[in-house]
Amino acid sequence: VIAEKAIAVLTASPEFAGKKILVTAGGTIEPIDPVRYIGNRSSGKMGYALARNAAKRGGAVTLISGPTGLAAPEAVEVIRVETAAQMRTAVLTRFADADIIIKAAAVADYRPREVAPQKIKKAGEVLSITLEKNPDILTELGQIKRQRQILVGFAAETQNLIDNAREKIVRKNLDMIVANNVTLPGAGFNTDTNIVKLLYKDGNIEDLPKMSKDEVARIILDKIHQYCQTAY
Amino acid sequence: VIAEKAIAVLTASPEFAGKKILVTAGGTIEPIDPVRYIGNRSSGKMGYALARNAAKRGGAVTLISGPTGLAAPEAVEVIRVETAAQMRTAVLTRFADADIIIKAAAVADYRPREVAPQKIKKAGEVLSITLEKNPDILTELGQIKRQRQILVGFAAETQNLIDNAREKIVRKNLDMIVANNVTLPGAGFNTDTNIVKLLYKDGNIEDLPKMSKDEVARIILDKIHQYCQTAY
Repeated sequence: VIAEKAIAVLTASPEFAGKKILVTAGGTIEPIDPVRYIGNRSSGKMGYALARNAAKRGGAVTLISGPTGLAAPEAVEVIRVETAAQMRTAVLTRFADADIIIKAAAVADYRPREVAPQKIKKAGEVLSITLEKNPDILTELGQIKRQRQILVGFAAETQNLIDNAREKIVRKNLDMIVANNVTLPGAGFNTDTNIVKLLYKDGNIEDLPKMSKDEVARIILDKIHQYCQTAY
Repeated sequence: VIAEKAIAVLTASPEFAGKKILVTAGGTIEPIDPVRYIGNRSSGKMGYALARNAAKRGGAVTLISGPTGLAAPEAVEVIRVETAAQMRTAVLTRFADADIIIKAAAVADYRPREVAPQKIKKAGEVLSITLEKNPDILTELGQIKRQRQILVGFAAETQNLIDNAREKIVRKNLDMIVANNVTLPGAGFNTDTNIVKLLYKDGNIEDLPKMSKDEVARIILDKIHQYCQTAY
């Protein structure tokens, strides 16, 4: 085994050569009418950094992206979607084929039950919108995941970070979850830095200090690579 | 009068020299909780084109902008806001001082009645959000507008374009309204072109063909300039 590892290091092919990596990024938007929508503050920066870094390290990367202002990373296939339903279809179509799936997108939990075909005119003082639950894509993936597929989720929380993330890793059958408290300065949405904790299936937790999203991406991919080596 | 006009043309100082021009652009976002919000599809391109063009023609331009992915136009003072309430404060603070006010922003008509201090956890199958009306900034401006101030509004509609725009020009005490049907291909949000109708206080209507937002901006400013010459 030591000899094998030495050979692997010496021949030094890119770490993710031959691996198909599926990354999701950005937020989804859920139309209320042709003009208005419910959105979220995800900028897509974390997911784009992961896709860019994975491609640099030899992975065959597909990035499924909600609306963002970001340019497509080099050597990455980008598929653009708007709603959670479109995101779900795009992910499910490509899931079986992927070795590593990293779900960095902030997919809307709820969508308006009815989408008005015309712009809703301003009328009464109060307007009520009824939302219904979107399917939970990550949970679905955890259910159909096969052996040797690595599934990584994200948890953006504003409180009870560790408890919420631990609960998700078990319930959604994930290998790893990247948790961040989006209310900390220098963490979360629209910043170029992030402060995350990495939680693993086996209960381990790693705390990363504040660093650029590019560095966070590099470390997440280091960990995924190590996990591939030890788990199989 | 002819002699005066000839002198004005010959001396050819920039058309908007000495004019203070206030432009609003982009959409506003109305938080539901720290992560989610209600937004709209305004890209800000039309308002930014107006601000850029007005500054090129000698105006002292202030641009009050909702969140957009656009860079600040050259020689324009940019004030960034998020919500309709912030937009209102920023506009009211600068209104008295402005000669020409062009409200190209798509300000949210409604905001969530309560903003949750923490991210709302996914719970029941159905979630209801109650919205309350935002103040109508354009209507307020029409009420406090003084003589020789020119107030231009925008109307993005998906149906009954002319009727809705005509009603607004009267009720909101505007000098001019730029109306577009955002459902037409090549018009409205996130496109680089627009198809608009210009409606005036006196009942006149001009139809412009599909053209770039930069060209639309140039024509709107031509019309405003003509209006300044004839109205006073």
